[in-house]
Amino acid sequence: MPAKSAESKPRYKVIGTRPVRHDGVDKVTGRAKYGADTRLTGMLYGFIVRSPHAHAKIRSIDTSAAVKVPGVRAIVTGADMPQAENEIAELGEGAVNMRHLSNNVLAGRKVLYRGHAVAAVAADSIHIAEEAASLIKVDYEPLPPVLDVRQAMEPGSTLLHDDIFTQEMGEQIADKPSNVASRFFYEQGEPDAAFAKAALVVEREFRTGTVHQGYIEPHASTALWNADGHITIWTCTQGSFSVREQMAHLLKVPQTYVKVIPTEIGGGFGGKISVYLDPVAALLSKKSGKPVKIIMSRADVFEATGPTPASYIRCKVGVDKEGRIVAGDAYLAYEAGAYPGSPINPGCMCIFACYEFPNARVEGFDVCVNKPRTNAYRAPGSTNAAYAVETVIDEICARLKLSPLEFRLKNAAKEGTRRVDGIVYPRVGMIETLEAIRDSEHWKSALSTPSHSDANGNGHAGPTFSSKVKVGRGIGSGYWFNAGLKSSVTVTVNSDGKVSLVEGSTDIGGSRTGIAMQLAETLGIRAEDVNPIVADTDSVGYNDVTGGSRVTHTTGMAAHKAGMLIRDKLCERAAQIWEVPVDTVSYDGGTIVAKSGQKFTFAELAAKLPHTGEALTVSADVNAPSAGGAFGTHLVDVAVDPETGKVDILRYTAAQDCGTAIHPSYVEGQIQGGAAQGIGWALNEEYFYDDSGRMRNSTYLDYRMPTTLDLPMIDCLIVEVPNPDHPFGVRGVGEVPICPPPAAINAAVFNAIGTHMYELPMSPWRVAAKLDSTNK
Amino acid sequence: MPAKSAESKPRYKVIGTRPVRHDGVDKVTGRAKYGADTRLTGMLYGFIVRSPHAHAKIRSIDTSAAVKVPGVRAIVTGADMPQAENEIAELGEGAVNMRHLSNNVLAGRKVLYRGHAVAAVAADSIHIAEEAASLIKVDYEPLPPVLDVRQAMEPGSTLLHDDIFTQEMGEQIADKPSNVASRFFYEQGEPDAAFAKAALVVEREFRTGTVHQGYIEPHASTALWNADGHITIWTCTQGSFSVREQMAHLLKVPQTYVKVIPTEIGGGFGGKISVYLDPVAALLSKKSGKPVKIIMSRADVFEATGPTPASYIRCKVGVDKEGRIVAGDAYLAYEAGAYPGSPINPGCMCIFACYEFPNARVEGFDVCVNKPRTNAYRAPGSTNAAYAVETVIDEICARLKLSPLEFRLKNAAKEGTRRVDGIVYPRVGMIETLEAIRDSEHWKSALSTPSHSDANGNGHAGPTFSSKVKVGRGIGSGYWFNAGLKSSVTVTVNSDGKVSLVEGSTDIGGSRTGIAMQLAETLGIRAEDVNPIVADTDSVGYNDVTGGSRVTHTTGMAAHKAGMLIRDKLCERAAQIWEVPVDTVSYDGGTIVAKSGQKFTFAELAAKLPHTGEALTVSADVNAPSAGGAFGTHLVDVAVDPETGKVDILRYTAAQDCGTAIHPSYVEGQIQGGAAQGIGWALNEEYFYDDSGRMRNSTYLDYRMPTTLDLPMIDCLIVEVPNPDHPFGVRGVGEVPICPPPAAINAAVFNAIGTHMYELPMSPWRVAAKLDSTNK
Repeated sequence: MPAKSAESKPRYKVIGTRPVRHDGVDKVTGRAKYGADTRLTGMLYGFIVRSPHAHAKIRSIDTSAAVKVPGVRAIVTGADMPQAENEIAELGEGAVNMRHLSNNVLAGRKVLYRGHAVAAVAADSIHIAEEAASLIKVDYEPLPPVLDVRQAMEPGSTLLHDDIFTQEMGEQIADKPSNVASRFFYEQGEPDAAFAKAALVVEREFRTGTVHQGYIEPHASTALWNADGHITIWTCTQGSFSVREQMAHLLKVPQTYVKVIPTEIGGGFGGKISVYLDPVAALLSKKSGKPVKIIMSRADVFEATGPTPASYIRCKVGVDKEGRIVAGDAYLAYEAGAYPGSPINPGCMCIFACYEFPNARVEGFDVCVNKPRTNAYRAPGSTNAAYAVETVIDEICARLKLSPLEFRLKNAAKEGTRRVDGIVYPRVGMIETLEAIRDSEHWKSALSTPSHSDANGNGHAGPTFSSKVKVGRGIGSGYWFNAGLKSSVTVTVNSDGKVSLVEGSTDIGGSRTGIAMQLAETLGIRAEDVNPIVADTDSVGYNDVTGGSRVTHTTGMAAHKAGMLIRDKLCERAAQIWEVPVDTVSYDGGTIVAKSGQKFTFAELAAKLPHTGEALTVSADVNAPSAGGAFGTHLVDVAVDPETGKVDILRYTAAQDCGTAIHPSYVEGQIQGGAAQGIGWALNEEYFYDDSGRMRNSTYLDYRMPTTLDLPMIDCLIVEVPNPDHPFGVRGVGEVPICPPPAAINAAVFNAIGTHMYELPMSPWRVAAKLDSTNK
Repeated sequence: MPAKSAESKPRYKVIGTRPVRHDGVDKVTGRAKYGADTRLTGMLYGFIVRSPHAHAKIRSIDTSAAVKVPGVRAIVTGADMPQAENEIAELGEGAVNMRHLSNNVLAGRKVLYRGHAVAAVAADSIHIAEEAASLIKVDYEPLPPVLDVRQAMEPGSTLLHDDIFTQEMGEQIADKPSNVASRFFYEQGEPDAAFAKAALVVEREFRTGTVHQGYIEPHASTALWNADGHITIWTCTQGSFSVREQMAHLLKVPQTYVKVIPTEIGGGFGGKISVYLDPVAALLSKKSGKPVKIIMSRADVFEATGPTPASYIRCKVGVDKEGRIVAGDAYLAYEAGAYPGSPINPGCMCIFACYEFPNARVEGFDVCVNKPRTNAYRAPGSTNAAYAVETVIDEICARLKLSPLEFRLKNAAKEGTRRVDGIVYPRVGMIETLEAIRDSEHWKSALSTPSHSDANGNGHAGPTFSSKVKVGRGIGSGYWFNAGLKSSVTVTVNSDGKVSLVEGSTDIGGSRTGIAMQLAETLGIRAEDVNPIVADTDSVGYNDVTGGSRVTHTTGMAAHKAGMLIRDKLCERAAQIWEVPVDTVSYDGGTIVAKSGQKFTFAELAAKLPHTGEALTVSADVNAPSAGGAFGTHLVDVAVDPETGKVDILRYTAAQDCGTAIHPSYVEGQIQGGAAQGIGWALNEEYFYDDSGRMRNSTYLDYRMPTTLDLPMIDCLIVEVPNPDHPFGVRGVGEVPICPPPAAINAAVFNAIGTHMYELPMSPWRVAAKLDSTNK
């Protein structure tokens, strides 16, 4: 799809084109090295002993039999972790209690979820390690688990922690220990008064299940704790510097002594920021004196890494008789899992973020339950919230017989809108995403019932349909902040007229190329003339995680800043060569020109650098407050089989404000990927727990993610409302596309069968049950 | 030995101390990875087919049998090298004719020395590769070899090249092809007139043998030519960027597409700058699609890498009756080996460089012979020259009954002295090295004959002596320019109060620590708080080779420059935090202070960086014209056994102007290592060729380098005459210590037995023969 430009934009030579990605050949030939591909001389293999209980005290751990197995080189338990304090460290995308992180890496006195790491063995082979692990005797005192957010909030509920007291704004607000770790509260205007005067108020309750990011590559880490106290980690991570910080804090070594070498990464989506294996591999290495590699199984990934929280949300919206929103009220309770830290706060800030809410109140709770400690997942917290508020709005539109699109256009957030947390928007593109949908062929086309045994119209070998299917169309919107944070790059000009770009942002979605393109644009050279390298933490300046939709924005800013420094230095060198004042020399596209008429192309001057002075290397650090807020509006046609309850996606169009699309293919890739994950979340994905707290579907056969056979082509409408705070107008694009799908699909389901669904996922059995109850 | 300071010097906190080297643990535990340690998945093993002839035409190469051996994946010959032009490229320490370099890597139409690479095989194992190599049939037309520089210069000599015509100053000065590739000529004053008036003129002829650097680690290279056209090389090299340039030129790929990952390096001394294996491994990788590793045997290293030239030198010096030098005249002919490029020009410039020569003439010749193409070896060209001129001076002193020390003090080069090539010295330390020797306990002590079966007095289990040994004492001096060239570093400040220092200078002699110390001194932190990393060519700015005695000087300058940029940025940040004008904030040692009284230590402010703005990363490039000329004077006591001719070193003291000794232990290591190599060159080391041009002693059993049992402790007198062109006064120290030993030992031998030796090495058989002929 061609990019749709909202404003007249500058003409770019490189930005907006679609060069072949620099890492493409390595990725398609299998040359690229992922986490499990690390192989070192003398390397040992680690295996983790995990709790079979969702909740238990550890009375003792007996490793005496295991340590005797020939080939076992080291065994560690929680007792080998340095004593962790209750300190809060700013790591990755948020603040982390170091004691909780430490106990999550290797359990302390209690296990808090099934799969919780209890001990680890390093041995000459993985088979020996597994055998020895089976001989480690852990004496557990099982406790009843609490697996649901609302149950966990009830007074008298089983307590996970006896030292957590509910906090608000850093202050303790409860006398007794609680599973509720935090309360958040935002208010603007006078919501109660506004509700009282509203023409229509709709209030609904929603539940969403536990959902995993489902990255293809399991966690894998190899560690070498050298005799000089330096630790090297080869790991697939979204944030090599975040791993460095966590390792330093957990293991009590200086950050500078931890070198993290990021491998390629087979997906992360927020789930590869917290450390799991890295400190354990390091401790095993310290004990054995050898490098140690640990790889998770898929069951480990499901059971012991950080999914996104299940949640309970109550949402109330009031409108006047013209369909203008007058007030909102929301209550959100998110499951943190075993330790505090769910994305409840962003959920609170996002729930009303797409619209003008002159009066609003939001209350949120972060609640511990006996599940793995949740972690970030693409726009963390916002999808749950969007599902709730958008469904309420869809019902309002239906009851007022308003077009959901016109309603949204009327109420959309825009420049100057004040969000419930007090932020006032700069120029944003919510309205433009609605207009893009309104103007789309999809919106203008009639909704048609697929003939049975028909494939949908997008070249996709889709499902066959019963003759009784009901079709429906719906839209939904979503918002994500996009974090800015810190990036640093180093750029060297080579005498062949090309440049090397050293960056620290691990490349998940083609960011090597997106950043290289911004440097190329700045210098007036080709994207192919930039050689991007993702370096280790020793070899590049500080970079925050690849996440928060920040990399193309912020590391791109760093590349632009470095490019501008290079332009200045090239002008200085040209002035020196030409013996003219430097202020008579300027950089014009890829050419250095003097007022007196001399010219060098970039490549010509690069070739002269070695013979006219020092080489040219620059480093640039940036710290961006935000990567520009982004809005997306999705339009979906579904078919609901009333007999089975199965919902099929017939057609899908996603409009999103991307600021400026640097490499439109990768922007589309992010939109399509996010939408696909949102669809999976909406329709099928969830953790099934039994009463003992055991996940019963911890394989990809049973945890049902969408496959290519489940989805039509997802059409992308790239809306470009340039971000005023970025030199090329970039906004983060990676996260917001996951927010609208559940809401849009719910609206489409309502349109098809006349009822909304109030629980995710809208699995066939839930839809069928709903239809049964509705028809009664 | 404590450093001896010639001038009052600034007080340093870090410089001059002896911290543990950062790579020490890796080196002593065996963790450090050298060239042969590279292991990659699917890696093949390469083997090189080498010429059995010293001189032959290649009629044809038949690989048909070899290619059929199961497990053979690729075979390459010279025909696989891209066509090389006769272009001159500036690579490493000097200019290189690319066609010659290409033909040296894989022979073209002729082989020019025994061991010349002709073809190469890559196979699944080294055994398969060797077997297949033995099946490659090369049809040679043998030609007579020419193995001696003077024979090669004779009209009618066998010609190595039919397209080399003698050049001078870039102009062709001969009509017919010649083995003499270049003539150099320098003159100042009126030497003929001065000689005519001289009170004494001594003229002698000298010969020196072919000597190898004798690094412990053989060359080893692993290459991966990726499907995207990018080449990665893991290699033990003195210059990763030089390898990159050579690879790019030879293989005709952009430099930016060549990534050189330098491994640790087990010695180089100038011999690991030219590429040998790297392009061959790359071509084999391109053909096979796999990574390919090639390792040289010791015989390969001797026969097919670049030793230092054998030479013929005629040297004439005239003095007045007060013992003041009035004129010098020298003729130097150096063996280039198979292709032009001996260090004849530095030899010409160095021969008279230690003294005031008001009138002088030097003529030099670069001459091809059928030996491996010579290469740099520690002060290349200067040792041969020092041996000649110092021996002539020693004879003058003897004949005039002048103290060799007083003679040198009287004639020593100093600030303002004009060298024969026209350079006028800035502040230099030749006189100070003589004074250091004069003031030494060694000089003041009596020369004593060791009792037989006595060990020498330096705690060293030395030789036992015959009762007939003659003892003698001698001194000799030497000079080396020290190159500056280009260095680049990138430094990041970490929040733990430490810094990471990314450098591109491969670390041969502890330079990680020497550079880290200069950064630490600049920042006022500890050397241990700097984490130095030797990065690959993609990940750091351009750096010239580790050689020319430039790294501690020039990369140290880059570290200092980076440190000063960091100081500025820290002051800016502190001013921002304190809300005071930046010009009221200054950097004082390791503390940032405001006039208004606030203070931060470096570590305190480093910890605040993440919370107050962007991170702090700087890059600094420098281009230094010189690393400050350095002089050394060595004093040696020897015992000569008149029956066997064996010369033993009884006591050895080396004085050297080091400018400022950053890490005195490594300065001493350089002085001791250079002296030891000079002693080996003086007494034992040489290539023995048979008439067919085959080296007969290409093993360490037969090529006699000194061992610890052969040498006493070499005492070092570090003289510090700060280099005015370096922020800490550093001069290059690595090379000049190899220059004085042959001359000093020759003087001591003369002192012992009454005759000088005019050929190196002064092996027992040569000394015995000389005594026999003298006694006749």
